[in-house]
This record gives sequence, C-alpha cells and structure tokens, in this order.
Amino acid sequence: MRISLYAASIPVYKQMLGSLRDILQKAEAHTAAKNIDANALLQARLYPDMFPLLRQVQAACDFARSAAARLANKDIPKVDDKQQSFADLQALIANTLAFLDTATAEQIDGQEEREVITRPGTPHERKFTCQSYLLSYALPQFFFHVTTAYAILRHNGVEIGKKDYMGAY
Amino acid sequence: MRISLYAASIPVYKQMLGSLRDILQKAEAHTAAKNIDANALLQARLYPDMFPLLRQVQAACDFARSAAARLANKDIPKVDDKQQSFADLQALIANTLAFLDTATAEQIDGQEEREVITRPGTPHERKFTCQSYLLSYALPQFFFHVTTAYAILRHNGVEIGKKDYMGAY
Repeated sequence: MRISLYAASIPVYKQMLGSLRDILQKAEAHTAAKNIDANALLQARLYPDMFPLLRQVQAACDFARSAAARLANKDIPKVDDKQQSFADLQALIANTLAFLDTATAEQIDGQEEREVITRPGTPHERKFTCQSYLLSYALPQFFFHVTTAYAILRHNGVEIGKKDYMGAY
Repeated sequence: MRISLYAASIPVYKQMLGSLRDILQKAEAHTAAKNIDANALLQARLYPDMFPLLRQVQAACDFARSAAARLANKDIPKVDDKQQSFADLQALIANTLAFLDTATAEQIDGQEEREVITRPGTPHERKFTCQSYLLSYALPQFFFHVTTAYAILRHNGVEIGKKDYMGAY
C-alpha cells in the first residue's frame, strides 16, 4: 500500500492556507487593536530585497494553485495580483481554497509519472514528474512563503504562535 | 500507481538538510569575511520569544530524525543538544543525514497506516497514522524551522537566496 499523490498535496495545501487565513485575521485584528496602519504589516519585509508580507501571501497562493492545476492536469487559473489590503488577501486565499476543491483525487492519483515542465521555453525550463515536482519543488516553495509570512508577522509583534502556523490537522 | 511513503519523506529531508548545511557554511564564511562574532548569527532571533538560529537548526534536525525513526519503526536516536558553534551544527546535520541513510524504502514503504503516537502519556498526546503524521505534522514542522533559519540569516544580511534554500533537486 502506498500513499496517494492527492493525499500528499491538496490536504497539505488546505491545512496551511487555512492557517495563513487565520494568521492574517489575527494580524488585521492586531492593526485595529493597536491603531496601526495595515500597510505597516502588509509592506513589512525581513530584508530590503525580500518580498513584503503581501507578496509572500500571493506567492504561497500561486504555488498552491499552480501545483493543484499541474497535478490535476488543468490550466493554471489566471489570477490578478492587485491585492492591496488584508481583505484582498483573504479573498485571494478563499479563491485559492475554492480552486483546490476542484482538484480531485480522481484527477490527481495515478498522475505520478506524468511530465511537468516549469517555465517552458525559458532558460529556467525544468522537467519533473508530477511526483518530483510536488515533493522537491512545489511543497518546499509553498512552505517557504507560508513560513516567511508568519515570520514577518512574528517579527512585527503580532501575537501568534506555532499552533497558529500548524493550522487544523 | 501511487507514490511511496519513503519518497515523500527521506529524499525531502535530505534535500532540505543539504540546503541548510550549505546555507550555514555561507553564514560562517560571512562571519569570517566581515569579522563578525559567530554568536551574533547563532544567537540571532526574529523576536525575543522565538528560537535563535542555533535552536532552529537543532529543531529542524530533531523533526527530520524523529520522522525518519517513526516511519521506519526505529527508536529515535538520542542526540545531545550541546551544539554551540557552526562546526557543531555542521556535525549535527551530518549526523542527521547519516541517520536518514539508515531508514530504507523497505522499512518505510507499506507503513502508511501504522499508528504513530506523539508525546505519549502527556496532555499533548496525539495519534496519527504514519501518513498523516508525515504530511500534516512532521513536514510542516520541519519546513518551518528550515525556513526560519534561512529567514534569520537573510534578516542579518547573509547573502543567500531562494536557490540556496531550495538546495539540490
């Protein structure tokens, strides 16, 4: 018996995007309680050439959406990147979670060896199987952005903890 | 066809611990080049009640080691936590990678539904299957500490990038 590609992907993305949603709710509540400009958090970075919080959340959603699409052999949905507020990010996460729900075990399981090509036709083109794409590329990238979003908020004094990061599991 | 529990665990831990090893080498070289006390990085935190870099690396190794042991149905090796230097952390990572190499596909594959109990006998006791333990608990925890180690070093000006975080894949 083996685990399914679906089980190794969609539920993991859903757990962590749920965590990100709740963490961002606490962050927004923190700005309200402390009378802080929301942009003080949304545009906060850990270093000048790193992405600010807003881009970290966009990137996490991008990696979840593109992984779900590639594994389920769907087109990656076009999503605008015009988010500017906590409400915009919440809508983006909700949209991403809704898309994850359209990627089913029936579509994903059995696709382990199908080829996935990232950045096709560019100097960064890379060939994977669905399995190697998920495990060696898409999940590490996704966790990077979720954790960095958390780290930016912790660094700025938002009262969240590891339990918030882990989400519901 | 499905993916194996081994493929979803040991190679992922090895990729990211290899990344952590190389990132810490660059961090140590940075302290030498800039004449910085190594402890300025090893004891750096993103917030006063977060773990410093040294503890983040220890935690990443702990989660990799305990996951490999639990999935392969081995005892979790006792490892001291007396690391104090970059050299100590490199030895810890090397030790962890060597232990991962003792956990084989033959030992891990097929164990998906075996029960794993974390913190048994404590108020935090939690029951998983090997599969749910890996995907919903052990990997998210592991990625958290690898990414936070990276984030601490980026925040302190060490010249590393996403490519370093991703490691060899």
